[in-house]
Amino acid sequence: MNEHDTSPTRRRLLGTVGAAGAAGLALGGAGGAFARSAAEDEAPTALATVGSTEVPFHGRHQPGITTPLQAHAHLAAFDLVSDAGRGRAAALLRRWSRTAAALMAGGPAPDGHSGVALDAGPSSLTVTFGFGRGFFRRTGLTARLPEALAPLPQFSADALDARRSDGDLWVQVGADDGLVAFEALRAVQRDASGTARLRWQMNGFNRSAGATARPMTMRNLMGQVDGTNNPKPSEPDFDERVFVPPGGTPDWMEHGSYAVFRRIRMLLDSWDELSLARQEKVIGRRKADGAPLSGGTETTAVDMEKRKGDGSPAVAANAHVRVTAPDTNGGAAMLRRSFSFHDGFRDDGAPDAGLLFVAWQADPLTGFVPVQRKLDSGDALSAFLRHEASALFAVPGGAAEGEYVGQRLLEG
Amino acid sequence: MNEHDTSPTRRRLLGTVGAAGAAGLALGGAGGAFARSAAEDEAPTALATVGSTEVPFHGRHQPGITTPLQAHAHLAAFDLVSDAGRGRAAALLRRWSRTAAALMAGGPAPDGHSGVALDAGPSSLTVTFGFGRGFFRRTGLTARLPEALAPLPQFSADALDARRSDGDLWVQVGADDGLVAFEALRAVQRDASGTARLRWQMNGFNRSAGATARPMTMRNLMGQVDGTNNPKPSEPDFDERVFVPPGGTPDWMEHGSYAVFRRIRMLLDSWDELSLARQEKVIGRRKADGAPLSGGTETTAVDMEKRKGDGSPAVAANAHVRVTAPDTNGGAAMLRRSFSFHDGFRDDGAPDAGLLFVAWQADPLTGFVPVQRKLDSGDALSAFLRHEASALFAVPGGAAEGEYVGQRLLEG
Repeated sequence: MNEHDTSPTRRRLLGTVGAAGAAGLALGGAGGAFARSAAEDEAPTALATVGSTEVPFHGRHQPGITTPLQAHAHLAAFDLVSDAGRGRAAALLRRWSRTAAALMAGGPAPDGHSGVALDAGPSSLTVTFGFGRGFFRRTGLTARLPEALAPLPQFSADALDARRSDGDLWVQVGADDGLVAFEALRAVQRDASGTARLRWQMNGFNRSAGATARPMTMRNLMGQVDGTNNPKPSEPDFDERVFVPPGGTPDWMEHGSYAVFRRIRMLLDSWDELSLARQEKVIGRRKADGAPLSGGTETTAVDMEKRKGDGSPAVAANAHVRVTAPDTNGGAAMLRRSFSFHDGFRDDGAPDAGLLFVAWQADPLTGFVPVQRKLDSGDALSAFLRHEASALFAVPGGAAEGEYVGQRLLEG
Repeated sequence: MNEHDTSPTRRRLLGTVGAAGAAGLALGGAGGAFARSAAEDEAPTALATVGSTEVPFHGRHQPGITTPLQAHAHLAAFDLVSDAGRGRAAALLRRWSRTAAALMAGGPAPDGHSGVALDAGPSSLTVTFGFGRGFFRRTGLTARLPEALAPLPQFSADALDARRSDGDLWVQVGADDGLVAFEALRAVQRDASGTARLRWQMNGFNRSAGATARPMTMRNLMGQVDGTNNPKPSEPDFDERVFVPPGGTPDWMEHGSYAVFRRIRMLLDSWDELSLARQEKVIGRRKADGAPLSGGTETTAVDMEKRKGDGSPAVAANAHVRVTAPDTNGGAAMLRRSFSFHDGFRDDGAPDAGLLFVAWQADPLTGFVPVQRKLDSGDALSAFLRHEASALFAVPGGAAEGEYVGQRLLEG
């Protein structure tokens, strides 16, 4: 008996809905509404079910960059084995692309019968692949190493664990179902067997689809509304900020993006001891609704000049929202698309929890780096954060039908 | 300014729907359908939204026992500090009950302004409290220690980590939203401060609400349909099997239940190497739909006598489904309500993943113990499992309005 004959594709079990078309369907009820990040346009609520929403694998950009934040994520970095070489690396990327396309369409993994996610729909699964600096050396491709992949500068507050930082290859898995996400991670790991070894792996989460009555910006584990000022796809300079432009350098990165990853542990015990007023002063926004302390609602521009009755600035000089504002950073902007993490508790009883910070930009030297430099020197929030791991990856453009991710690098 | 004035209750933000009444509402769409376990009656799909479903805290039984499985769980054990005594333990249970009632109703925690789950509805949050053997010694209540709380026997395959086993107090948090679950865990930990120290804590998950097109039994990380033969609330002997009866011993455990917890790591790399046919032989069920190898559909009773054409039994002598069948265990049955776990990967590259097994029964000596004894001696599945942590807790009945959980023990 052919084992695969007994595995109905997940697509067959559900009336699958493409993500792009979901907003046009009127299935009724708010149950399947995305908890959409502010990175997304303020489109009408997508009414697809949690399970049946499908994100396309093939396209100009890789999935998982402008896709609405999912409830579950796995981040994993791999190192090529020493004798892998360019040919085996290319074969791995081909396997990974095939696996990602199959799973994202709601099918089983091409190699197996794990069955973990057999009953679930595509569940907005995305699988995104990136290259770290080490990849180029190990595959003899240093001539094609992007300048933008220069190591990030060291910041004074960094306490980085090398074993959980960097890596030759990076995989970001996101899905609105935990079993679908787990199956994808396992399939990616099986595909890598013999060619690349897992270097580090972390699990993240965000609010569940449907947990709020209407789409709302995410909150992080400090309780802050997080992502309000993200660039939005509807803005004219969105592509320019997030993606390498057509004709950009190097050519194989056209339509690609650079992902900065940071594991940022939050000192939640100290944070929770602050009064609400102190927390809001540190951030520069109200906790309840994310409105700036200069007034208005969540989406009102922060008025940096506004003063209180006593003459002091409404938004403090070292408030997080002031230090990170694009107009205090030469217009730099990045698309933050982060997941919370919670890996239990440390020996001292403090939660090992915080943010798996992921930021997307056309160039880290005008995106993450200048902002982090400013945060490093004068941000009130920094006292409550520990940067414990860091990485930078070149994430090439999406694969066309019949192509695999990275093909233009590996075969160009 | 009163800090709490700025925190609208989560209930106010959503049209909250009680879990009991949810099935009667016709909100339209399958998006909010529960991925309901087979432990539940085959009721019509509950159409409430993910966020707005509320489980009552007060009642005959504690929540989180017959509640449909949620997508996120935290299990935590605490030890009383050495000088806590009965009075401070009682005060802690009072605080915990108040916190659980407030959060389960969609409100903020009574003590704080963490705000993590401010936008989300109750999201089927449940918080369940239990007592381990140590609790009775430390509070001078050994005269009221239930006989059923005798230490579990050692099983030959056990490789238990004492630091992640047992505990004076146990808290089980479940919710369909990760931020709601995290907020509850943090609130419980803050409440314990000064009275009890965290001993161990683990995170679990299950399929998301709405990930499947219709309610289906859960799958575990081996891909097996898991929970088909669970006792169902509609069966006449359900209460007798799961809950301590009226007039039971000790009196403070009336309407309570005993929870057996096991951290069961799965050797997924070895498991995934088996052919589908071998996996199915080990379990005794088909992977695709959970039907027994003796024929029929998932819910068909296993025909233990059925033979194949060659005369061999259709369900092997050591198949998991045969060894665990209630009619081969003197009718013993327990309500399994487990969560998957995935804590990254071990140093050897194998996933640190498996099942946070939680089983509920009126008496572990007729529930878990005889079944585990049989599994220990002749179950084909055991070779792929490692029992790494274990605990047994007495979970008293639910609190009436104005009462706290455990009051009949602590003030009786």
